[in-house]
Amino acid sequence: MQTTLEKTDRTRARRAHKRATYDLETIYSILDNTLMCHVGYIIDGSPIVMPTIHWREGNTVYWHASSAGRGIRAAEKQQVCLTAASLDGLVLARSALHHSANYRSVMVFGQPHIVTGFTEKAEKLRNMIEHIYPGRWETLRPITAQEVKATTILGLDITEASAKIRAEGVHDDPEDISWPTWAGVIPFETRVGTAEPDAGVDPSLSVPDHWAPG
Amino acid sequence: MQTTLEKTDRTRARRAHKRATYDLETIYSILDNTLMCHVGYIIDGSPIVMPTIHWREGNTVYWHASSAGRGIRAAEKQQVCLTAASLDGLVLARSALHHSANYRSVMVFGQPHIVTGFTEKAEKLRNMIEHIYPGRWETLRPITAQEVKATTILGLDITEASAKIRAEGVHDDPEDISWPTWAGVIPFETRVGTAEPDAGVDPSLSVPDHWAPG
Repeated sequence: MQTTLEKTDRTRARRAHKRATYDLETIYSILDNTLMCHVGYIIDGSPIVMPTIHWREGNTVYWHASSAGRGIRAAEKQQVCLTAASLDGLVLARSALHHSANYRSVMVFGQPHIVTGFTEKAEKLRNMIEHIYPGRWETLRPITAQEVKATTILGLDITEASAKIRAEGVHDDPEDISWPTWAGVIPFETRVGTAEPDAGVDPSLSVPDHWAPG
Repeated sequence: MQTTLEKTDRTRARRAHKRATYDLETIYSILDNTLMCHVGYIIDGSPIVMPTIHWREGNTVYWHASSAGRGIRAAEKQQVCLTAASLDGLVLARSALHHSANYRSVMVFGQPHIVTGFTEKAEKLRNMIEHIYPGRWETLRPITAQEVKATTILGLDITEASAKIRAEGVHDDPEDISWPTWAGVIPFETRVGTAEPDAGVDPSLSVPDHWAPG
């Protein structure tokens, strides 16, 4: 089984090569632990970067949009770049230039395909819901043919991709270590807040376990 | 004083036009309240989306990178799209397709300029530090000429931009309201965790107020 990807010019595109990895498990883990990604398309010769929710199935990352969306129409015929990134903390050094950030990020490059076929599309929509809300699909009002039709699902195979992670402390110049200012890492945590039930929700129904405050 | 921007084909590029706004104060507020953005460039004919930290001064949004970076070299001669987005919550409906997300996002389009001149670059670096860490610049080991040189700062004027915000509850079809599943909003909160001081930090020094856990 393939466990790492080949380097390409595009996956090498960021400067801190020492932090780049082509390990598939790392790439998968970052994709699975970020809800939002940013997809870059070219429309009329200019780049456009659209935030969206993504999910992964095996070696493919998926996202969806209204069938009327511009990005979706443009995407099928071109290369895109899907970037998923999490800002995990700020790194405060004693000198301005050694300030940094802790983060995890993945870039996936390639030409996406549009998922066609009613059954396959419905299955992908189910997988999206189940990815974000495990166990929820069966509790929902069943999806209609019209709803499946109104949505376009794009898939991008993870064949050209790299991850970058910084999860470290401060790297100050040795002669600055005694400089009298606070230095260290300020971590960020994304927490689930108090759920706000919609009007009309039967009070006996509870928030999906997966998203109950931790 | 100008308070809203003109619509253009590019700023109209996303589907939910009802959520788009061209109000400058809204655009500024989203840029100011997101630390990370994603900048889309075109390199060798393909889009590439790079996450970075940004800051705003007046009507310009800035970011910085190593002078050796590929994106930076490509950016000066081309259109880019800078997107800053915050995922604020998940919206759980009774039907799959009405699931949504609450978010705030801004897209800024245009050709960036590179900040030239030692004094102006040093001033921008100071502004970056002060934006993220108010009051910190004066406490740091003074920046050197070599450090200023090693950094490239890009600025993008906010002349073609739009914001999109969803900060709402569930919009289910009326006939689904009594469907027996939980529906509502699960908000996300980004919190500052416990600061981790670097080895050698004098215990009498405290974490910058701005980033003390709230």
